[in-house]
Amino acid sequence: MRSGAVLYNDFELLDAYGPLEMFGCLGDDLEIVVIAERKGPVKSSGGPQTLAEYDFDDAPELDMLLLPGGIGTVPELGNAALMKFLQTRCPNSQINMSVWTGSALFAKAGLLDGLKATSNKMFFSLASSQSDKVEWVEQARWVDAGQYVTSSGVSAGTDMALAVIQRIFGAERARQVADFTEYQWHQDADADPFAQLLNQGSPAVAG
Amino acid sequence: MRSGAVLYNDFELLDAYGPLEMFGCLGDDLEIVVIAERKGPVKSSGGPQTLAEYDFDDAPELDMLLLPGGIGTVPELGNAALMKFLQTRCPNSQINMSVWTGSALFAKAGLLDGLKATSNKMFFSLASSQSDKVEWVEQARWVDAGQYVTSSGVSAGTDMALAVIQRIFGAERARQVADFTEYQWHQDADADPFAQLLNQGSPAVAG
Repeated sequence: MRSGAVLYNDFELLDAYGPLEMFGCLGDDLEIVVIAERKGPVKSSGGPQTLAEYDFDDAPELDMLLLPGGIGTVPELGNAALMKFLQTRCPNSQINMSVWTGSALFAKAGLLDGLKATSNKMFFSLASSQSDKVEWVEQARWVDAGQYVTSSGVSAGTDMALAVIQRIFGAERARQVADFTEYQWHQDADADPFAQLLNQGSPAVAG
Repeated sequence: MRSGAVLYNDFELLDAYGPLEMFGCLGDDLEIVVIAERKGPVKSSGGPQTLAEYDFDDAPELDMLLLPGGIGTVPELGNAALMKFLQTRCPNSQINMSVWTGSALFAKAGLLDGLKATSNKMFFSLASSQSDKVEWVEQARWVDAGQYVTSSGVSAGTDMALAVIQRIFGAERARQVADFTEYQWHQDADADPFAQLLNQGSPAVAG
């Protein structure tokens, strides 16, 4: 199987690399590719740059697609090339995952209409304002709607990734990955201690 | 302040990006730079490549240094250029941090002699066999020995990073970063539920 991370300028590092760490532990069972609108370095909001090996035109077929959030989400909402890529690729991917504000992009592309979905807490309305045809779930660590799995906070993406590994590769494999990374996996998708932060924004953190 | 992540071929993604996510949330208060023996793309064990902006010769002065682990640690133990870089730079850095097997490299460089330190659980002896002058702590999420802070599992690095943020920038700032990333911070450095995995290796995970 193949999982593609779709990056854009000012993506949030852990949104991408929490799940990619877990997927990377599957070795040859899951190839990871990195895709962006243009090949080459993509700057994260934290600074470090990841190399995109594929662009929207030559990206290979994907079994799974991972879309991080980040402060870069806001300008990307107006990026027609990204919208077209998501609208073309996601319906053919077995599982499409978003982290943090990434669900705003799925929603803007119309891909979540009729489904349950969630987003990060502090800027929840960024996602929910993109479509009123989505059943937005405010209190959830992640929401598994089958072909689309959306997670809330930056860190919740890691828990979501383990849940997806469990769904596809089984519970024992997911447990092995959690042990290997010494990760205290939160297995309850509905347990969301950060729901109290809903739409509060962030007081002193430059993301 | 400036924090430098020192990467090498087959580093473990979350070892680097858990801490860098937290540091990245500090905005202008902490610049992040990426360093490797040679500038350009550095492949992680999971596949994705990070761009190193600096090499060992032109890396700027660092207030903090972050050294991830990974399956690439083993060949790096014999890399004289990396050893020299660490031996030259770490004594001048306020805080040097390792994640997972990264402490094996600090130990090999002789930097941990006389100090308490820890490492990942499944391959603990990789680190502890590098120096018998280190007071190796088998049960710890991370060990703060002042100028050297070593963490155990991949995920423990994220908790260590928040503890370092707390030490330098204060508890309120660390809490804000944890909330922003919706991260359930494990604040007790001694609470280590993975100590039972000590030197068991990993049965079915290709890291």
